[in-house]
Amino acid sequence: MQIEMSPEIDARALSLIDWSEVGEDVWADCLEATLRFSREGKRWSNRFAEKSIVLLFLNPSLRTRCSMELAAGQLGAHVTTLQTDAGLWKLCFEDGVRMDGLEVEHVREAAGVLSAYYDAIGIRVFAGLTDYENDRDDRMLRSFAASSTVPVVNMESAWAHPCQALADAGVLSSLYPGCNGKRFVLSWAYHPKALPMAVPNSTVQMAARMGFDVTIARPDGYALDPNVMKTASVLASFAGGSIEETTDLAGACEGANVIYAKAWAGPLHYEDPAAESELRASHKDWCITSDLMDSTDGGKFMHCLPVRRNVVVTDEVLDGPNTLHIHQATFRIFAQKAILERCWGG
Amino acid sequence: MQIEMSPEIDARALSLIDWSEVGEDVWADCLEATLRFSREGKRWSNRFAEKSIVLLFLNPSLRTRCSMELAAGQLGAHVTTLQTDAGLWKLCFEDGVRMDGLEVEHVREAAGVLSAYYDAIGIRVFAGLTDYENDRDDRMLRSFAASSTVPVVNMESAWAHPCQALADAGVLSSLYPGCNGKRFVLSWAYHPKALPMAVPNSTVQMAARMGFDVTIARPDGYALDPNVMKTASVLASFAGGSIEETTDLAGACEGANVIYAKAWAGPLHYEDPAAESELRASHKDWCITSDLMDSTDGGKFMHCLPVRRNVVVTDEVLDGPNTLHIHQATFRIFAQKAILERCWGG
Amino acid sequence: MQIEMSPEIDARALSLIDWSEVGEDVWADCLEATLRFSREGKRWSNRFAEKSIVLLFLNPSLRTRCSMELAAGQLGAHVTTLQTDAGLWKLCFEDGVRMDGLEVEHVREAAGVLSAYYDAIGIRVFAGLTDYENDRDDRMLRSFAASSTVPVVNMESAWAHPCQALADAGVLSSLYPGCNGKRFVLSWAYHPKALPMAVPNSTVQMAARMGFDVTIARPDGYALDPNVMKTASVLASFAGGSIEETTDLAGACEGANVIYAKAWAGPLHYEDPAAESELRASHKDWCITSDLMDSTDGGKFMHCLPVRRNVVVTDEVLDGPNTLHIHQATFRIFAQKAILERCWGG
Repeated sequence: MQIEMSPEIDARALSLIDWSEVGEDVWADCLEATLRFSREGKRWSNRFAEKSIVLLFLNPSLRTRCSMELAAGQLGAHVTTLQTDAGLWKLCFEDGVRMDGLEVEHVREAAGVLSAYYDAIGIRVFAGLTDYENDRDDRMLRSFAASSTVPVVNMESAWAHPCQALADAGVLSSLYPGCNGKRFVLSWAYHPKALPMAVPNSTVQMAARMGFDVTIARPDGYALDPNVMKTASVLASFAGGSIEETTDLAGACEGANVIYAKAWAGPLHYEDPAAESELRASHKDWCITSDLMDSTDGGKFMHCLPVRRNVVVTDEVLDGPNTLHIHQATFRIFAQKAILERCWGG
Repeated sequence: MQIEMSPEIDARALSLIDWSEVGEDVWADCLEATLRFSREGKRWSNRFAEKSIVLLFLNPSLRTRCSMELAAGQLGAHVTTLQTDAGLWKLCFEDGVRMDGLEVEHVREAAGVLSAYYDAIGIRVFAGLTDYENDRDDRMLRSFAASSTVPVVNMESAWAHPCQALADAGVLSSLYPGCNGKRFVLSWAYHPKALPMAVPNSTVQMAARMGFDVTIARPDGYALDPNVMKTASVLASFAGGSIEETTDLAGACEGANVIYAKAWAGPLHYEDPAAESELRASHKDWCITSDLMDSTDGGKFMHCLPVRRNVVVTDEVLDGPNTLHIHQATFRIFAQKAILERCWGG
Repeated sequence: MQIEMSPEIDARALSLIDWSEVGEDVWADCLEATLRFSREGKRWSNRFAEKSIVLLFLNPSLRTRCSMELAAGQLGAHVTTLQTDAGLWKLCFEDGVRMDGLEVEHVREAAGVLSAYYDAIGIRVFAGLTDYENDRDDRMLRSFAASSTVPVVNMESAWAHPCQALADAGVLSSLYPGCNGKRFVLSWAYHPKALPMAVPNSTVQMAARMGFDVTIARPDGYALDPNVMKTASVLASFAGGSIEETTDLAGACEGANVIYAKAWAGPLHYEDPAAESELRASHKDWCITSDLMDSTDGGKFMHCLPVRRNVVVTDEVLDGPNTLHIHQATFRIFAQKAILERCWGG
């Protein structure tokens, strides 16, 4: 038979699921490339004109979609963007089932076909927030990646948001060439909806890896997963920083250099939405205000966006001079260029 | 800190919200450029290969989306198209609110990020038809534009449709090199739904500016806003034309050169849908027929599309030789190339 | 009047609605071009950099959308993709009606405008499954094509899926340089939903044209349309093959070379969903298993996708070595390049 498909099995090694699975050298190279792309700014080239990527969104997106389209486009690659709520077949992620329900296509076929078509696949698949182990093990993303034969880039999964983490690291590197001795606070924030843990998981590990003294300020019941914390601790000790947790937000902010706010639903009531909602509602005061920012050491405010104004953070902070949220979004383009460059050969 | 964003504050001066706010020289330049692009026809170049534009649709579109993608694409620019009903976060346009409802992202962040990413932003945001002042002041569009630092192009807002107006002016200029002494009728039409006033507002001012003798034929209760009419009158007197209103459609059509049909909900019952609907339903006979066209002076039919056949205008007129509706749509590409050329430096 | 539109009336002759309407030489040229493109593999060129195509999806798609974007993109053309469920106006396909219902735009305007904008139009419009004659005559697609002045490519209509048929022919040609004497089984399959007949219609005619000895295995009540069968018979006799029907799936599979599975709702209860559903549910055993495949002569499994695992075909077959479903999807790119090349001038 004449049909010959190049399986490129090794390409999977170039997938980016979670930075915690990737060697320190890869992280360092990608961060350096991010900074290089940030110095270039907007630049359009034909460098990867023979490459193409498909972006598959199972959840909403503004920044990720736009910054991925621009990152790939500025590198010369072709981009197809797919939204599962706009004209796509509903996907089945479970193996071995009899598909006689609502799901029309199995991830094996979807990932198999997209791998045959494109040179990389970006996928966004948020936490379902109904099954902790399922989310913690990132089963949907990993099921998709296991059926792909080209590099898969995690555009935010149930458990990690590596594109955001690299972009944030780029912003912080620009700001603080040395992070040791600087204090980074990841603050839980109130939010009217239960939100996934992907961003806090990736943020705490990013800050630890950068060498910050990291404080996670969050109410009781909102501790991050023990495995995430363990990895963060190891990263911190290698980088010469530290990790601690507190329920005292005001105390954490005092003298800090960075306040990174994010809402999330913690493991305590993860599978009990009513209990989680009640506990969350008792912490509506967890909002970053000018008073908190004034108590820092000229600290910077960070958020991955989208952000609910006057719920997670006040207008004064977001409209003031000490916020990095637009910079973080801008660095997404640079970080994702670095990630694509790794996929397609620096 | 090393991060440097070029704010390009002056870029906002290149935004196109409403032609009534732009100098006559800009209009004249854009119209000339529209005609120049129409003579070129389909031509693909790399002229703006370093530029990119995002098109943000909060409402449906066929022509605007396609013609904008083609206008930018033929000029060599990269285009991202976003639909708020397909995978985008719901936007909050109001300042100072506590965002604990359905809206997930504030326009300040959305416009801020898109400004950091793209070299221009096209936005479509229709009238809500529930608050007259809100629509008349184009608050959603202006709130978005105020948070943008790159040129914003109005792809139809609550109150204006400048891309359509320039395209229509291009068609009319091609048809009637001199418009003085020619009669242009803007005719209200029945429609099963209440529709916004953006197109009639922009159309009457366009026709006035071109020097037509303009007649607005509409039932009682469907007068345009006094400020729109005042601006149109000033434009007409400068251009050597005139503006008048009538409730006599047949009389208006007699001897006219152009019949431009459009349905809209007038200010009279703007915030009272039941009353507006009842009044509207009493005017189902406001439909452009062959008989009306036959009474013109070889007049041409115009409509911005989409159009409901045999409600707004009969099949005979649309399928006959004296209609310009496809030409109008075609000129959208030429007009928008002119507008982008202005944004990005002719 | 200066406005000059090039109507290119002859361009309609280049439309691809159904292979049964196209000369044998065109089919042969396209199949040869498909194989030529398959040998090239992924290759990006600027060959049709002055061309553009719009893809209009009235129904979901994964493969067709991606493979069309890549086919056009790899040939250098610009692509716009439109989904009617994401920000488009609802289209009216019927002539002469008073459009005062839910439909906002007539196909005459939509096709007219898209013809003025683009150099080809791809359209997907599935069977409604409520009116047999309407579907059999492909009225929606033909109404759209009749209003277009550029080539229209059928991306699966109520009655035909010519892109899939050409891709499948390409795969089979690669596999069996001579098909005469080989046995091709088109097997009906159970499915929880009533599905259109476009794929079986196109598949049986493709297999007949290739010279296979074709067996259609399907339960009573699921015979294909007599006209489809008649055309298939004529094609088979020209090609030196044959066509037969049976209700004995196991018998059909024995010694076969290809098993092509597909679910469809047959003409018997086409307009009576309850009766069709009841009849269908009595045939849940129509599923391609390893046992059936083992009884073939080293036969290959084919399916157009999406496919419901363990309903239409078992995991063992799809995950085994004798399936062509990913190859079929891959050949869509090559086949559609061939079709676009024909539209735009080899």
